[in-house]
Amino acid sequence: MKSLVGSPGTVSGLLLRLGQCLFAAASIGVMVSSSGFSNYTAFCYLIASMGLQVLWSMGLACLDVYALRIKRDLHNPVLVSLFVVGDWVTATLSLAAACSSAGVTILFARDVRFCSRGLDLSCSRYQISISCAFVTWALIAKSSLVMFWLLASV
Amino acid sequence: MKSLVGSPGTVSGLLLRLGQCLFAAASIGVMVSSSGFSNYTAFCYLIASMGLQVLWSMGLACLDVYALRIKRDLHNPVLVSLFVVGDWVTATLSLAAACSSAGVTILFARDVRFCSRGLDLSCSRYQISISCAFVTWALIAKSSLVMFWLLASV
Repeated sequence: MKSLVGSPGTVSGLLLRLGQCLFAAASIGVMVSSSGFSNYTAFCYLIASMGLQVLWSMGLACLDVYALRIKRDLHNPVLVSLFVVGDWVTATLSLAAACSSAGVTILFARDVRFCSRGLDLSCSRYQISISCAFVTWALIAKSSLVMFWLLASV
Repeated sequence: MKSLVGSPGTVSGLLLRLGQCLFAAASIGVMVSSSGFSNYTAFCYLIASMGLQVLWSMGLACLDVYALRIKRDLHNPVLVSLFVVGDWVTATLSLAAACSSAGVTILFARDVRFCSRGLDLSCSRYQISISCAFVTWALIAKSSLVMFWLLASV
């Protein structure tokens, strides 16, 4: 298997995983600190999806640290297949969560103008949280493409 | 390059493209026939995204018909790279559009219960249209994976 930027067991792979954890955790933190988020299914789903992302990326970051310390090669077809499935599932869920929350926030901000009417909605916090979720998705999409490429080029 | 179910220039590839066109067109048709859709950004974005999907899938279906008629092989790295980029962009846009519209519809149906209050909203039509968009996404995701696999296994 070739080695690519972001492949498992490398420093770039570890940085990518840490970035995913960081942005997913930031997204959860900002959303939880906003008022009234729990009334909306899309925002609760965003928190659940980002929570799953944190767990998955944290697990793989630990595996990367272990592989780097004992200099073990993680480029083995069975492991990479597992990473591909996990990465694709979490990437799809993250994009779905970010987009559904973005749809609801755009509805509040532009279509029904709830944000400018002084209701109990932290629209700017929703927007920051969703931006973090999109960054998380971009990072996990990069990981997924690298994993799929590694698997296909065996 | 290997030949997979759904690869370009094959009957299965053509059927996949026609399925994408059909479900995307159905999604647009049902959404356009619902009342009040134009007041919501997410639903307008769904129509735009499904429109792009129809154009892209129709173009590739025509190319498949041409390749099948003159028995030409479309498994050429430059063409497949082009298909990969187009398929990934349209797949991501379709998923984003379907999820943002689903977020808004769930908000109407469950969170604020606008659907059961007899307002001028065709909630069941929105749901049918979004279901068609998710089927379109599943079909385009299958095409994208096949194309990426073909490209990576050159």
